[in-house]
Amino acid sequence: MYIVPEAAIADILTRDAAFDAVENVFAAMSAGDAYNFPVIREAIGHEDALYGFKGGFDGKGMSLGLKAGGYWPHNLAERGLINHQSTVFLFDPDTGKVAAMVGGNLLTALRTAAASSVSIKHLARKDSKVMGMIGAGHQAKFQLRAALETHQFEKVIGWNRNANALSTLADVAAEFDLPFEAVSLEGMVEADVVISITSVFSPIFGAAHISDGTHVACMGTDTIGKQEADTDLVTKATVFTDEVAQSVTLGEAQHAVGAGLKSREDIHELGAVINGTHKGRTSDTEITLFDGTGVGLQDLAVSASIVEIAKAKGIGLEVDF
Amino acid sequence: MYIVPEAAIADILTRDAAFDAVENVFAAMSAGDAYNFPVIREAIGHEDALYGFKGGFDGKGMSLGLKAGGYWPHNLAERGLINHQSTVFLFDPDTGKVAAMVGGNLLTALRTAAASSVSIKHLARKDSKVMGMIGAGHQAKFQLRAALETHQFEKVIGWNRNANALSTLADVAAEFDLPFEAVSLEGMVEADVVISITSVFSPIFGAAHISDGTHVACMGTDTIGKQEADTDLVTKATVFTDEVAQSVTLGEAQHAVGAGLKSREDIHELGAVINGTHKGRTSDTEITLFDGTGVGLQDLAVSASIVEIAKAKGIGLEVDF
Repeated sequence: MYIVPEAAIADILTRDAAFDAVENVFAAMSAGDAYNFPVIREAIGHEDALYGFKGGFDGKGMSLGLKAGGYWPHNLAERGLINHQSTVFLFDPDTGKVAAMVGGNLLTALRTAAASSVSIKHLARKDSKVMGMIGAGHQAKFQLRAALETHQFEKVIGWNRNANALSTLADVAAEFDLPFEAVSLEGMVEADVVISITSVFSPIFGAAHISDGTHVACMGTDTIGKQEADTDLVTKATVFTDEVAQSVTLGEAQHAVGAGLKSREDIHELGAVINGTHKGRTSDTEITLFDGTGVGLQDLAVSASIVEIAKAKGIGLEVDF
Repeated sequence: MYIVPEAAIADILTRDAAFDAVENVFAAMSAGDAYNFPVIREAIGHEDALYGFKGGFDGKGMSLGLKAGGYWPHNLAERGLINHQSTVFLFDPDTGKVAAMVGGNLLTALRTAAASSVSIKHLARKDSKVMGMIGAGHQAKFQLRAALETHQFEKVIGWNRNANALSTLADVAAEFDLPFEAVSLEGMVEADVVISITSVFSPIFGAAHISDGTHVACMGTDTIGKQEADTDLVTKATVFTDEVAQSVTLGEAQHAVGAGLKSREDIHELGAVINGTHKGRTSDTEITLFDGTGVGLQDLAVSASIVEIAKAKGIGLEVDF
């Protein structure tokens, strides 16, 4: 089996490779070639940790396995470790033998960023000029960097509850020689594309903050009860997602669907747009919303790509197991 | 993290260590200190394989993680590999970082054998003389060896659909200087302890084949629909199990409970007997039946023991992950 440690991921995984892997797996899911297993997520009653497994099988890309790990909220303060800890294990679909182990921390940030980028490629207006960020935490800079690589924007605007944290986003904008402006939530109406990446349980923004024709990627809601966008926006928008079953139960759409404002049939797969079986955006005034809930297949697809690159570059180690 | 490959397990894991680990974890489960997560088990639609995860957390033994793998029915015939393939991954409960990876194939056979042995220690009559085996497949020899180490028997008898396969059990009996006799199912009435380890979907034996006072360990039923013992025996016996939730849904007790012949409250935890909170066997004529369904915590407990011994012996390898 092949091992790619966490510390090696930054030298291996390009945003391009993450983008391609995620785009392909969304397409495979929508075509019925790949599926995610039920998610295990347990509050283990120790260190306030949430721990679990996200597994799946992609019969087209031939990746099988799981991401295991979770959220240890005291890691950073008490141990100087990041709070989200995860590891991906790949298995050989032909034999059931373990095939690879890949550090999952940076990978998770990059595959999540790749998901919003794939949605921007397929759903944002081609003439989009202003990129808007809601949230400036650990994952936000990965999101912004991937978005700026995916589409040629002219300006970045951002909002965060603590405005000081926006300097990390200004730094990313500067990497791309783009101006950055801190705005109020009302100022977000200037954006053509918005990514929200927060971890909140009551909505921060809604229809009043989003202009017609905007593409919104809600990337922060992956748990029952969490909510970034008001249901007025979700109701008004055409909603796409990575996996409908997750979107309507623990994603951003859970609240609109729970309140009867949208039905399950109103939530579309981004993979169907990639495959051409759904038309995607149909006008320049339509608001499109991508509900990025995060699925195990993304982790497997990106990990398989990492292992391939690592082997070619001679990074990592082969272990007789 | 620490890696103990499959090939190293035979030199590390003693039956004593497996026995102690399983006995302790059954006790911890019954005391409420350890619990198993929901099991993921998927027919992936490739190679007719069943694949999944059995995870859990033992807050007393401090083991967290999962066994991943499954059943690849064409491995042996087409590739010369064993059909059951699994790997155990342990995580640090304090940080969520992966701590160890352990080959799970031999381990699974030994932990399953340890479970029936723990049941023999706590539920069989102390004056048991004849050990009876039903089934002589891959796992049967592990079961018999562990049983013969747990209690001083005077004779071994065995039945198998294909009687030729019984020679492997005769060899194990010979290791212990015990006589072996192939019997009909009717001949099984001579046994004081019976282990059934088959993989069948309709009952092979029942109350007519088991004498009063016998302890029966049904080790083959771990799936909805499987059944080794007729409900007349399960109904007559006092039933113990590793995990009640599994016993009544996918274990040997599923049929008696499904037919209303036993209630969930009639199924007792073996761990409660170990802890002294259930009295266990109450007479020399009572039939006790252990429904061994197999839980992830057994794998974690035995793996933690393996890693400890491996580190002490300098077997395996430390990888910077």
